[in-house]
Amino acid sequence: MKRRLLLVSNSTLHGEGYLQHCQQHIRDFFGEKVTRILFIPYALHDRDAYAKTARQKFQSLGYELDSIHEAPNPVDAVRKAQGIFIGGGNTFRLLKTLYDHNLVSEIKKRVLEDGVPYMGSSAGTNVSTVSICTTNDMPIVCPPTLTAIGLVPFNINPHYLDTDPNSRHMGETREQRIMQYHEEPDTPSVLGLREGSVLLVEGNKATLLGTTNACLFIRGKPATQHEPGADFSFLLTDTN
Amino acid sequence: MKRRLLLVSNSTLHGEGYLQHCQQHIRDFFGEKVTRILFIPYALHDRDAYAKTARQKFQSLGYELDSIHEAPNPVDAVRKAQGIFIGGGNTFRLLKTLYDHNLVSEIKKRVLEDGVPYMGSSAGTNVSTVSICTTNDMPIVCPPTLTAIGLVPFNINPHYLDTDPNSRHMGETREQRIMQYHEEPDTPSVLGLREGSVLLVEGNKATLLGTTNACLFIRGKPATQHEPGADFSFLLTDTN
Repeated sequence: MKRRLLLVSNSTLHGEGYLQHCQQHIRDFFGEKVTRILFIPYALHDRDAYAKTARQKFQSLGYELDSIHEAPNPVDAVRKAQGIFIGGGNTFRLLKTLYDHNLVSEIKKRVLEDGVPYMGSSAGTNVSTVSICTTNDMPIVCPPTLTAIGLVPFNINPHYLDTDPNSRHMGETREQRIMQYHEEPDTPSVLGLREGSVLLVEGNKATLLGTTNACLFIRGKPATQHEPGADFSFLLTDTN
Repeated sequence: MKRRLLLVSNSTLHGEGYLQHCQQHIRDFFGEKVTRILFIPYALHDRDAYAKTARQKFQSLGYELDSIHEAPNPVDAVRKAQGIFIGGGNTFRLLKTLYDHNLVSEIKKRVLEDGVPYMGSSAGTNVSTVSICTTNDMPIVCPPTLTAIGLVPFNINPHYLDTDPNSRHMGETREQRIMQYHEEPDTPSVLGLREGSVLLVEGNKATLLGTTNACLFIRGKPATQHEPGADFSFLLTDTN
């Protein structure tokens, strides 16, 4: 399988610039063969402003950036893309717009069959997995389904947040929410990527990059912690 | 309109017992004519345990409690109910199960036409509004639509949480999430009920009860703060 994915938990770390924390991983990932990146800004309302921010960052890293919202035909833009980057924002809005433009199956085909490198950040990471059932976002719009692009056979929870023992707020903790997901039948494993974490997938190999530990939830088992460098290739088998 | 609603932000305040913070409001709301409450536990996985917790509390307040998951015919149980209480948990699971059992239109009819008193807590409050688009919950299952029972023409965000200025977490704040909702067309006002807040609706009158201020988001306007006792009747007109 030609699959190459760079799945980032969050675009911006506190006190840093946009995509600063993972910029070396971005360079390593897209390398020198890719010269233009197709950017998908659908997760945010102001697509022009979003494309401008992303373009500035990618130009500083040596890549030209085309935003799909400026393309006359979005499906055609995906068919011609050398590399794809889907940015963060609202995951429901993002997935709905991908379906509205018939892009879900097209992106899947390009990445899995043609080996086009795919980078996602936050919502862009959520939509690369089995479903958006483990997003943190508010369901501000209703996509036709929660099933996502399915580039990997597990789910990710980006911006994973540890329980604050001093909190007096009584909403569910992140861990409780993921446990509730696993109360439902046939739900896949969930990798909680803390801010600062990145998952690199190359073919059937998956490796944790970045500066923070990841928290893995396998249905029916206690959650486990994993340090940067951890090999998550076992999550890429369909039976995890 | 006969509508009578008691919409509670959260069942349990930090350090207190189940429904303790609003128990006097519950007594005042159901009064002495109602002797049995129909409880809907669908938002949690363990319905037996949930019904036991709710039954103990309501018995201590002088009411018998029937849980709908023990009824041979859920629609029939709603048709016969003197009063309804939908408890909190996962809002997506709750709404999906209400649709699975054909209860959405039946509850609406009973409450709006027959004047059956309706109490909701957290997820049970979310489903009483226009839609669950302003829930905080994880979309662990996919309901057929996000449109909810529609007992009021606005949305509520329960467990409303103020932005923590010291947080280094980069996920969207609650205010940002509701603002993103209002970037979408034709979205109704959103009443953010902090933990400890309760909204009482009687016919065309709505009043804030409880111990905390509520935060109101009207599309295109800055958010406003409202103290307990505030009159929110203007939200009950369809054109808010």
